[in-house]
Amino acid sequence: MSAAGHITVAARWQVKEGAFSEVLAIVAELRPLSLGEPGCLGYEVYQGVDAPNSLLLFERYRDEAALDAHKQSSHYQGLVVGRILPLLEDRRVEFFSAK
Amino acid sequence: MSAAGHITVAARWQVKEGAFSEVLAIVAELRPLSLGEPGCLGYEVYQGVDAPNSLLLFERYRDEAALDAHKQSSHYQGLVVGRILPLLEDRRVEFFSAK
Repeated sequence: MSAAGHITVAARWQVKEGAFSEVLAIVAELRPLSLGEPGCLGYEVYQGVDAPNSLLLFERYRDEAALDAHKQSSHYQGLVVGRILPLLEDRRVEFFSAK
Repeated sequence: MSAAGHITVAARWQVKEGAFSEVLAIVAELRPLSLGEPGCLGYEVYQGVDAPNSLLLFERYRDEAALDAHKQSSHYQGLVVGRILPLLEDRRVEFFSAK
C-alpha cells in the first residue's frame, strides 16, 4: 500500500461567491500543465457535494524536490498565485504520505 | 476529468493516543475487503505528515447504492463501527464529485 517518499497534497479551496466556474476553468488549464511535470504523479480535482463552492485538489509528487519544482513552475505562479488565489475565500493545504 | 455519478469519500480520522498502529492494522484488513465490493472503485489510505496521529481514507464508489452497500457490509460494520470508531478521537467525512 505504501509509496515510499511520495508526497500527497490535499488543497482545500473555498471559492468566492460567483467565481467558481472561472476557477474551474483555470484549474482545467493548470491540471495538464502540472501533470506534465516530471515529478507530478497525480492531479485530481473534486467539487464538494455538500459545499459546492469548494474544491479539493488531490495531488501526488515523487518527492519534496518535485513538489518544490511544481510551486516554482511558471504555470503555478501564473495560474494559482496570480489568478486563482485572489478568487478564494479560504485555502487549506495538508500533506500526507501513502500507507 | 469528470466521472459522472461516482462518489468520492474523504474520511478524516483523528486516532486516540497510542492506538494508531492498531487502527492501521485493522485498516489493512478492511482495505482489500472494501476493494472487493463490486461498487468500490478505489480505496486509498494516507497518514497526515504534520498530524501523524491522523488518517485520511480516500474512497471511490460507483454510485450512492454502492456507498450504501459498503456501509451495510459485514466488514464495515465489524471493523469500522465495531473496532475502529471506539479508537478515534475525531472523525469527519466529506463527499466529493470528480471534475
